Amino acid sequence: MIIVPHVSLVTVIEVVAIMVGAFSGFVEARRKRMDIVGVIIVAFIAAFGGGTLRDILLDKRPLFWVQHQEYTILLFVLALTVSPFLKQIRHIVSERMIVVADAVGLGLFAVAGVSQAQAAQMPVFIAAMMGVITGIFGGVLRDIVCNEVPMVFRDGKPYAICAFFGCWMYILLQYVQVPADTALWTSAATITALRLVTWKFDLRVGRPGG
Amino acid sequence: MIIVPHVSLVTVIEVVAIMVGAFSGFVEARRKRMDIVGVIIVAFIAAFGGGTLRDILLDKRPLFWVQHQEYTILLFVLALTVSPFLKQIRHIVSERMIVVADAVGLGLFAVAGVSQAQAAQMPVFIAAMMGVITGIFGGVLRDIVCNEVPMVFRDGKPYAICAFFGCWMYILLQYVQVPADTALWTSAATITALRLVTWKFDLRVGRPGG
Amino acid sequence: MIIVPHVSLVTVIEVVAIMVGAFSGFVEARRKRMDIVGVIIVAFIAAFGGGTLRDILLDKRPLFWVQHQEYTILLFVLALTVSPFLKQIRHIVSERMIVVADAVGLGLFAVAGVSQAQAAQMPVFIAAMMGVITGIFGGVLRDIVCNEVPMVFRDGKPYAICAFFGCWMYILLQYVQVPADTALWTSAATITALRLVTWKFDLRVGRPGG
Repeated sequence: MIIVPHVSLVTVIEVVAIMVGAFSGFVEARRKRMDIVGVIIVAFIAAFGGGTLRDILLDKRPLFWVQHQEYTILLFVLALTVSPFLKQIRHIVSERMIVVADAVGLGLFAVAGVSQAQAAQMPVFIAAMMGVITGIFGGVLRDIVCNEVPMVFRDGKPYAICAFFGCWMYILLQYVQVPADTALWTSAATITALRLVTWKFDLRVGRPGG
Repeated sequence: MIIVPHVSLVTVIEVVAIMVGAFSGFVEARRKRMDIVGVIIVAFIAAFGGGTLRDILLDKRPLFWVQHQEYTILLFVLALTVSPFLKQIRHIVSERMIVVADAVGLGLFAVAGVSQAQAAQMPVFIAAMMGVITGIFGGVLRDIVCNEVPMVFRDGKPYAICAFFGCWMYILLQYVQVPADTALWTSAATITALRLVTWKFDLRVGRPGG
Repeated sequence: MIIVPHVSLVTVIEVVAIMVGAFSGFVEARRKRMDIVGVIIVAFIAAFGGGTLRDILLDKRPLFWVQHQEYTILLFVLALTVSPFLKQIRHIVSERMIVVADAVGLGLFAVAGVSQAQAAQMPVFIAAMMGVITGIFGGVLRDIVCNEVPMVFRDGKPYAICAFFGCWMYILLQYVQVPADTALWTSAATITALRLVTWKFDLRVGRPGG
């Protein structure tokens, strides 16, 4: 009898999303001419920062990356082995691939954030906010550590707005008795689709009072 | 029979203080040319950051803005409706009005911070510190996210010192058996008055070793 | 009978390490032309930031500086009395003295961080990470508040790597049944020695993909 290791779809998406987050950290840290310590820690913050902030706000322990120590080790090994070849990788991996993977991650993490906030008895508006925080604060904290105004606050792209919309969709679908799994996948897919459409057509929101 | 909604003085002061904090976030985010996502989140950090940091340090949950979801929604609606008219508002609202409202908020939040720290059994010096943190860290976190050295650390105005003084006053008044309510209002009013006097006469503290 | 106050070696090292951390905050805050409020808070963040972040991630309360209120008061008094004479102090205290004291503190705090993470049932890789976080994040948070890219992420010196190595040494020594105290002191001393040797010979690690 052969035992096939069970690797679920969620696990695959999670790992891809974490790797994309970490990759954004590699790129930013390298652009700031950081050393290997900076590269590892910035990648870590970019990949796990949003979920960590959410868990601290919800007072949830163990943290995501403590519970899944293997993801932390994976990121560490990646930083050591992959980051020296960042220039070569950027030739192979197109911007399109990164945007798609990131959009998939945004959808999954945002909806997962809402779900965890609901499990922690958060009121509905707070739950939607926690979804957005989970989705975007990895990048926000990465940019703060790299001494930049966070990109997601200034580039005018509706990145956080796509997440916000999908988080409310998830909440409303549950309210109308759609099964939890269907609600989760539909909402995550909607966020991903919205993000890709707004990226494709380079849609922007205005600057208030600009 | 007419039911009059009960809105206490504390609630009014809280809402005004939060709005002033949020307004400082609007102004700073706009100065940094942020988009609407940045404006909302920076306003949120400026309004709730100090209390959130205090609650995390004290391990107190639910957080202030989770318990009062209505404040979070109010701030969100304000950011969407008011921030586009920031330029016009700054013509109507004088600097004096903002300073007064901010001074009232500083007094209330600092003393409330001490009170919550005492409820969490903090030792006395730590409780005073928690009051100051509650009063000033909204602005500190706002400035960090906006990629600035925090204003309260460098402008030489005794903003934090007024708060620190009033926090100790609150502790000492309780120690000499002054009723809790009297102690709270006297100390908060003292902070507000100190802040306004030091602002009026533009008092500054020196730079160490300058 | 004379009662001699018991001041253990650990307490002495802790106080020295905290003072060195605070001193790095004084220097950085002054370089940024901060006022006395900034100097105190930046010194506080530099001295206690790493342990505070670790305790928040582990959900451990009371925080180190709450439990040892006397350290907080000491730092506060130091900031008021010592920081005006920073220029003079820098003439008396050589760079060598600061590096040695900092190296001793790095060793002690990193190993203490691992120990606390183990007490909180953290998996082994996470425990090693918590040690490094405890050792370096005071400086990281200090630099973020001072609006700089954290020095430990970009100067190429193997500061964090020395701590990481010693944290694993501590874990492995325990695994092979070395008594806890011996493991702790050996590992802390190794970190200190590694840091001093790499400083003496100005060893650097490369920049990934540079």
